[in-house]
Amino acid sequence: MPESVTLEDVRAAADRLRGAIVATPFLHSHTLSRIAGAELWLKFENLQFTSSFKERGALNKLLRLSAAERQRGVIAMSAGNHAQSVAYHAGRLGVPALIVMPRFTPFVKVTHTQSYGAEVVLYGDTVDEAAGRAREIEAERNLVFVHPYDDADVIAGQGTLALEMLEGGPALDALVAPIGGGGLLAGVAIAAKALRPELALYGVQSEGYPSAYAALHGVPLPAPAPTIAEGIAVQTPGRLTLPILRALIEDVLLVNEDALERAVSLLANIEKTIVEGAGGAGLAATLAHPEIFRGKRVGLILCGGNIDSRLLASVLMRDLVREGRLARLRIEIRDSPGALADAARIAAENGGNIVDVEHHRVFAHVNIKSANLDLAVETRDAAHMQAILRAFESAGYAARLLDGDHA
Amino acid sequence: MPESVTLEDVRAAADRLRGAIVATPFLHSHTLSRIAGAELWLKFENLQFTSSFKERGALNKLLRLSAAERQRGVIAMSAGNHAQSVAYHAGRLGVPALIVMPRFTPFVKVTHTQSYGAEVVLYGDTVDEAAGRAREIEAERNLVFVHPYDDADVIAGQGTLALEMLEGGPALDALVAPIGGGGLLAGVAIAAKALRPELALYGVQSEGYPSAYAALHGVPLPAPAPTIAEGIAVQTPGRLTLPILRALIEDVLLVNEDALERAVSLLANIEKTIVEGAGGAGLAATLAHPEIFRGKRVGLILCGGNIDSRLLASVLMRDLVREGRLARLRIEIRDSPGALADAARIAAENGGNIVDVEHHRVFAHVNIKSANLDLAVETRDAAHMQAILRAFESAGYAARLLDGDHA
Repeated sequence: MPESVTLEDVRAAADRLRGAIVATPFLHSHTLSRIAGAELWLKFENLQFTSSFKERGALNKLLRLSAAERQRGVIAMSAGNHAQSVAYHAGRLGVPALIVMPRFTPFVKVTHTQSYGAEVVLYGDTVDEAAGRAREIEAERNLVFVHPYDDADVIAGQGTLALEMLEGGPALDALVAPIGGGGLLAGVAIAAKALRPELALYGVQSEGYPSAYAALHGVPLPAPAPTIAEGIAVQTPGRLTLPILRALIEDVLLVNEDALERAVSLLANIEKTIVEGAGGAGLAATLAHPEIFRGKRVGLILCGGNIDSRLLASVLMRDLVREGRLARLRIEIRDSPGALADAARIAAENGGNIVDVEHHRVFAHVNIKSANLDLAVETRDAAHMQAILRAFESAGYAARLLDGDHA
Repeated sequence: MPESVTLEDVRAAADRLRGAIVATPFLHSHTLSRIAGAELWLKFENLQFTSSFKERGALNKLLRLSAAERQRGVIAMSAGNHAQSVAYHAGRLGVPALIVMPRFTPFVKVTHTQSYGAEVVLYGDTVDEAAGRAREIEAERNLVFVHPYDDADVIAGQGTLALEMLEGGPALDALVAPIGGGGLLAGVAIAAKALRPELALYGVQSEGYPSAYAALHGVPLPAPAPTIAEGIAVQTPGRLTLPILRALIEDVLLVNEDALERAVSLLANIEKTIVEGAGGAGLAATLAHPEIFRGKRVGLILCGGNIDSRLLASVLMRDLVREGRLARLRIEIRDSPGALADAARIAAENGGNIVDVEHHRVFAHVNIKSANLDLAVETRDAAHMQAILRAFESAGYAARLLDGDHA
């Protein structure tokens, strides 16, 4: 293992960051612990100013620049949290910052980055094209490149999270953090293993982007698949970070999209906190791999909270569907006055709350004098939904549950 | 002012509650401070175990019972947070608890309350009917009634919030808390004014339920209106709490539904935290009454996080509409192949993300060979939406923005 970053580097980073980075809460979750069968402690790193841990590494890097470097300025490439972190702290420190973002970057992220005083260059259709352009500008303008993970100062900055968790919290048995490029877990692992060698460290990746998993296990990388955990959708693990992970962590756990969505929902419904997909990865892993964590005291890093509100709204609604509390009932009705009134009465009398109604005539494979009535119904649970279905059948209706969008 | 509750009572309550109640984080919000023009500090009381401050008062009351009273058990009436608070802590302490809930109570709240071991009686179509039944059972079974606010021990318990905010936080100029029955603000006011007499205290109520406002200002109470802040939709201020509020607070500020919704959205989008309507009331008040708070250091109590996830999803989506980032564009198209493709191309070329499509033929007041095409389009802001509208017009389409649901 390269001795590029040490506990002392992390401690020095913590001293540098003090006062400029939120010492985010680290709280026990009673209910999630019960659900997971393990004692879960959550590090609310989504409460960082730009809502992610990336500030720690970026700021440590900025504070390590020489006066001349500060004056010339920095450059970074990112479509997400790293861009805002560099822009925000460079702005605070009066360091000129140029951020190259791929052209597909959501506009809200571009405007946030600009609002902190950074110059934004939109370039390329992929992250690689944007990164190539950033390296060109770095050379042209003689700027310092702030890498999102493959940089010893950045890794040391992320490691400060481990100091806060291990020195301020309970004696952990395990610690779980997502891996994109690996900067977060590499830094955390260096500090955590030095402070508490018996601690077991686990990385998490989405099944769609298992780059560190593939590298550590020597298996081929599958074609990338869309994921809600955009923050860790990284195709290549870092050159600096991978050897650190290989030396210090137990394993990389893979989670699927369903588990990630469920974790985001659970954190919203139970912990009342908003995380992006990657921020839910640790919880997803403890729920997907209960045998590893059963009875253990586990620290999870809620590493970021930057989720688009339309996406969050979808996750919340899809969770109601997944739990059977929201479903579409298809009922065959006579195409005549009173049919909807009768159906609505049956739903109401059985405690179902109708939230949407659709009639299908032309495309319905029913008698021309009939129609399909689709009711989106909210119930208290899946059993209640079944009871309402049976009530329609008892009243003489042909009725069935539609599964999701498949009619 | 009745000397029913004192700072010493609040301190004694804090000693009693220690270890059984979360000492919730109290954090500065950079961005909300900028928006409000005041220095805002947020007390994350939505991170309490049952996600509301009500536990403090309920537990203090339970811990003040005699051994005989504990054995006989307690009774409470609530459709919301008080029910879960009493049930949870009674369950922990092994005190039998019976909770009367109105029949309209959402089932998820009933099951939560039962899950803590409480007996639930569903009774009545109004809160008053349920309360009447609870008083009958209290007498029949010789139970101790745990009032949600009009009880000195409950008031003292809620006051422990002020100790945490004033003794652990910065020197506040003002403190803002919602008023339902007034137990929260009465307890907070007693402790806060004793510790820091120069502190200005403000209550918040929704315009639809201004009961304390009406009582303190001697104006008639309007007919109740539906509100997202169900937790403070209380028609009658407490007999114990009202004189305390009259003596100690500056004023009650009223906020409308739009301000409450906006506050819930801001806390989700910026602070990554989920509050119910009442939990957003303090922020809503600072934004609605900026002249009172400008330049001041203000503590806000995010008093609860129990918001239905479907309601939260609606608030998030409605906020996108309010900000002009999501709107419906109505375009008149030829009813022929290629029309949708052309419209979709124009939206795409101008950076608009189409999230829903509807065609209207039969009900459209257009030529029979034409149709109305409604596109739900997501943009970066209202100006971007206008640019897309103009792009359609330049391409020769009759196009307009539909406002909300009004077609």
